[in-house]
Amino acid sequence: MDNAATTKPLNIIKEAYKQYAENEWYNPSALYAPSAHASKKMDDIRKTILTALHAHTGHIVFTSGGTESNNLAIMHAASVAKNGHFVISAYEHASGYATVKAVEQAGYTVSFIMPNDDGIIEPETVANAVNEQTLMVSMMHVNNETGALNDINAIAEKVKQKNAKTFFHADGVQGFLKVPFIIGDAIDFYSMSAHKIGGIKGTGALYVKNPKNLRALLYGGAQESGMRAGTENTFGITAFGLAVEHHALDYDKANALRQRLLNGVNQIEDSVINSPLKDGCYSPYIVNVSFLGVRSETLLHALETEHIYIGIGSACSSHKRTNRIHDALGLKPEIAESAVRISFGEQSTQEEIDIMLIAIEKQIKILRQFKRR
Amino acid sequence: MDNAATTKPLNIIKEAYKQYAENEWYNPSALYAPSAHASKKMDDIRKTILTALHAHTGHIVFTSGGTESNNLAIMHAASVAKNGHFVISAYEHASGYATVKAVEQAGYTVSFIMPNDDGIIEPETVANAVNEQTLMVSMMHVNNETGALNDINAIAEKVKQKNAKTFFHADGVQGFLKVPFIIGDAIDFYSMSAHKIGGIKGTGALYVKNPKNLRALLYGGAQESGMRAGTENTFGITAFGLAVEHHALDYDKANALRQRLLNGVNQIEDSVINSPLKDGCYSPYIVNVSFLGVRSETLLHALETEHIYIGIGSACSSHKRTNRIHDALGLKPEIAESAVRISFGEQSTQEEIDIMLIAIEKQIKILRQFKRR
Repeated sequence: MDNAATTKPLNIIKEAYKQYAENEWYNPSALYAPSAHASKKMDDIRKTILTALHAHTGHIVFTSGGTESNNLAIMHAASVAKNGHFVISAYEHASGYATVKAVEQAGYTVSFIMPNDDGIIEPETVANAVNEQTLMVSMMHVNNETGALNDINAIAEKVKQKNAKTFFHADGVQGFLKVPFIIGDAIDFYSMSAHKIGGIKGTGALYVKNPKNLRALLYGGAQESGMRAGTENTFGITAFGLAVEHHALDYDKANALRQRLLNGVNQIEDSVINSPLKDGCYSPYIVNVSFLGVRSETLLHALETEHIYIGIGSACSSHKRTNRIHDALGLKPEIAESAVRISFGEQSTQEEIDIMLIAIEKQIKILRQFKRR
Repeated sequence: MDNAATTKPLNIIKEAYKQYAENEWYNPSALYAPSAHASKKMDDIRKTILTALHAHTGHIVFTSGGTESNNLAIMHAASVAKNGHFVISAYEHASGYATVKAVEQAGYTVSFIMPNDDGIIEPETVANAVNEQTLMVSMMHVNNETGALNDINAIAEKVKQKNAKTFFHADGVQGFLKVPFIIGDAIDFYSMSAHKIGGIKGTGALYVKNPKNLRALLYGGAQESGMRAGTENTFGITAFGLAVEHHALDYDKANALRQRLLNGVNQIEDSVINSPLKDGCYSPYIVNVSFLGVRSETLLHALETEHIYIGIGSACSSHKRTNRIHDALGLKPEIAESAVRISFGEQSTQEEIDIMLIAIEKQIKILRQFKRR
């Protein structure tokens, strides 16, 4: 129940590893035939990903993950001019947020956009923040803590109307293949991660609409058309391709799981749903909820005794004491300190939701009694 | 015979993949027990690598490969001051060379050190180039095209005597576990790559003597003690650990393979050994040789018809027309254009050397006839 942190790799990848280890481990940059095969396979997977995005143009650059993809896009924008302006949401994932903060420290200015009462970012609000100096707007497709779904095509279009030269980047790590999406012409960069959709950790990709002159983040060999140096992680890329081809993430099924969870939570006393509830404003894969009086981490460990694993915010920032995202959402302290994240994957079932709800009810009853003594 | 480009992954990694896919795929940053297990496993592998380096201090940061490790170390040095001086060898791998060239473009100055007549970099020459402003000296341990072995401990000590504040970084990608080595106190950073020693592509490491205040290259989550953001490639790291533990690279065996190859090559008319020959100046794993009158790529493809794969320079730069390394070595055009790289791995045998020598002799006889017609 913490699939937003990572997912179990698809079974089919086991066979792919065997093939890699036997016949497909060659360096794709070498000049003999097995290397050319490895190189062609990567190019086929680029096409598979472009097709999954419904893109009719653009290029896929493979990276070491969503974090590197976000860094690559944002640092490219910063390389265009010695100073300028960035616009991001206040609830970006750490990898986008920290990169923009580094850019800010280097002398660029940044506007942070707050979500509206429905928990999403409004295109108008973003456009109002864009000015002549804005180098890039970077906005999450789906928020990793609440599941808030932003209409990034609409945001990107508004941004381009205000300043056609401004790059638009979306962190699509929690959105790619989890919500219906056709990448629009106004989107210049879109970050993806393999291990969130059944691939393995250590591989990501960046969709680049216009690959010409993309500034590399890692310098070195001419791999990835000069956009990303380093011997390609061909096994990770193969697994990524398989995850995209064979993904069985089902929007309607996820919606049914979400509804069953929300119905159950609503019957628990003093519970608060922190995820957006309005139609069109959420991904069904992530639900954020608070059981008042029970601290997030306490509930996590209580459920762990029953072999149920949930999340508290982003795993990437799980060891931090304060939560920037909760602040951005304006959660009251008693709600913030008890917020947990439940997130579905391909294997999640309604039965699992029911088992979890019983466990939650049992555990919070014990924990609340303990607290009130 | 192109193991310097990449190696076949060790068989034991197949079983490790199964374990990863079944029970070890959890996000190491999450707070429940299987995640803590994944995190502890990574820490154990850090210790394994430190032990392999015979390091009594320092920290291992996992990266996406040798390229990222080199970028991380060099960019850290550039972050220390707004301007300053770098010293590198003229025959660094593209990932070190291009990073320093990027730093040069940003306004830093760079001295490029040429190898001596034995093909190695002399400590005195390096020290002479170091001044008060030198932020970093970056030198390969083993050159990836010729196998030249530099005494990086001696170089680092001389550098520190000249300027104690200068960082010393070594690209150890072709040296780690291939030549006897005890990391000395004067070395601040040492880059390693898993897929050169039987691991899989997409994982590397940087030894950092003093991890305090290391500037991250990728911004984001607090993974890797804040030194490298992004969900860790736990499978790649596991494979790296296994490769280090089970590595059967045998210096004496490699030396015997090299000697057999050199003996054979010396019996071929118009052949030139481009690798260092002096004792202590070479890694036995890489031999660079020219068969005059036969272009490198032509020989590569001719041998490919007999299922023998050799390299021509670095795979990372194999599609380039000119070879910076050949220039640095001062190779005459007819030697440079026919230079090929033969490199051994764990599985290489004397029989394979003999088969290859027969094939080379046969093919160059045909190709030279063809040329002389």
